[in-house]
Amino acid sequence: MDFEEKTVKRELIYQGSIIDLFLEEVLLPNGQKAKRELVEHPGAVAISAFTKDQKMIFVKQYRKALNRITLEIPAGKIDRTDQDPLDTAKRELEEETAYQADKFYYETSFYTSPGFADELLHLYIAEGLTKVIDPLPQDEDEFIELYELTFSEAWAAYEAQEICDAKTVYALLMWKLRLLAEESEAI
Amino acid sequence: MDFEEKTVKRELIYQGSIIDLFLEEVLLPNGQKAKRELVEHPGAVAISAFTKDQKMIFVKQYRKALNRITLEIPAGKIDRTDQDPLDTAKRELEEETAYQADKFYYETSFYTSPGFADELLHLYIAEGLTKVIDPLPQDEDEFIELYELTFSEAWAAYEAQEICDAKTVYALLMWKLRLLAEESEAI
Repeated sequence: MDFEEKTVKRELIYQGSIIDLFLEEVLLPNGQKAKRELVEHPGAVAISAFTKDQKMIFVKQYRKALNRITLEIPAGKIDRTDQDPLDTAKRELEEETAYQADKFYYETSFYTSPGFADELLHLYIAEGLTKVIDPLPQDEDEFIELYELTFSEAWAAYEAQEICDAKTVYALLMWKLRLLAEESEAI
Repeated sequence: MDFEEKTVKRELIYQGSIIDLFLEEVLLPNGQKAKRELVEHPGAVAISAFTKDQKMIFVKQYRKALNRITLEIPAGKIDRTDQDPLDTAKRELEEETAYQADKFYYETSFYTSPGFADELLHLYIAEGLTKVIDPLPQDEDEFIELYELTFSEAWAAYEAQEICDAKTVYALLMWKLRLLAEESEAI
């Protein structure tokens, strides 16, 4: 079956600094037409960063889109000048947490909202953290507080819905799977 | 620390059928101003639906936002007339798969893209599936193919990046955790 929706008309509705919005008219497989509202986003990275005592780093911040405070893993959008999402990951980790990491491992990538947005999120694990004396400055419009949580503390924050976004929930589940794997090796 | 960003000015850029776009000027905690591009979305549901032989149901569809085909769990946006996200889940499962379920369990909710969108996704597990003789019709502009996959098949589809969106990756990880829990009970 050929599923493709061919673009018949494409209109730029808004060009912003984080997202652009397009309205497209598409031709469906059955020959009918339909409208598609499409948000274009440069993509983002997020980092599961572990301290030497196996705590994970979280940032508390106000999210205007949600009108509430959230607890999330460090993350940020990919800049035009980034050669590789890993560059973004290193920069965002240092900007948001003042940590550099000895080791970065690529974990996975997923689309956050495939129904209307092309945002692709790349997830990394960072280990061997060292505080930087003179770190990259935080973004001027970003106000955050850092937390270093054990797995139990982080899971409690998830159950209390302070942790409430897709990438951070993913990071928690992967952490749980790693802990289970370590347990079963230890038996 | 008071993180709140107070709205100084709010402009409707686009009012669509799936999303609305607002541009807000906000007052930061330090008294500076900043712009926020905010996508408003009615929220959505997704369903991990298990057949009697413990396969999960996936829908293959073309995603215009990504210009590619994906394999996802059944999902859909909440309609204004839905009293509860569970109503949406029941309808979307029947529309997309022609299955009704004996049992629905609420699993979790998360924001898909808190940096720019308020979309909140509610996840359910559905069990005890029965094919409906005369199911709710699919949406007119939706063309999908159904797949029933074992865990290994689904995991292979994830590694092949056919499964590539946040909610479906979440569903897979939760499935893996449940299988591990069943294994450890069996020991």
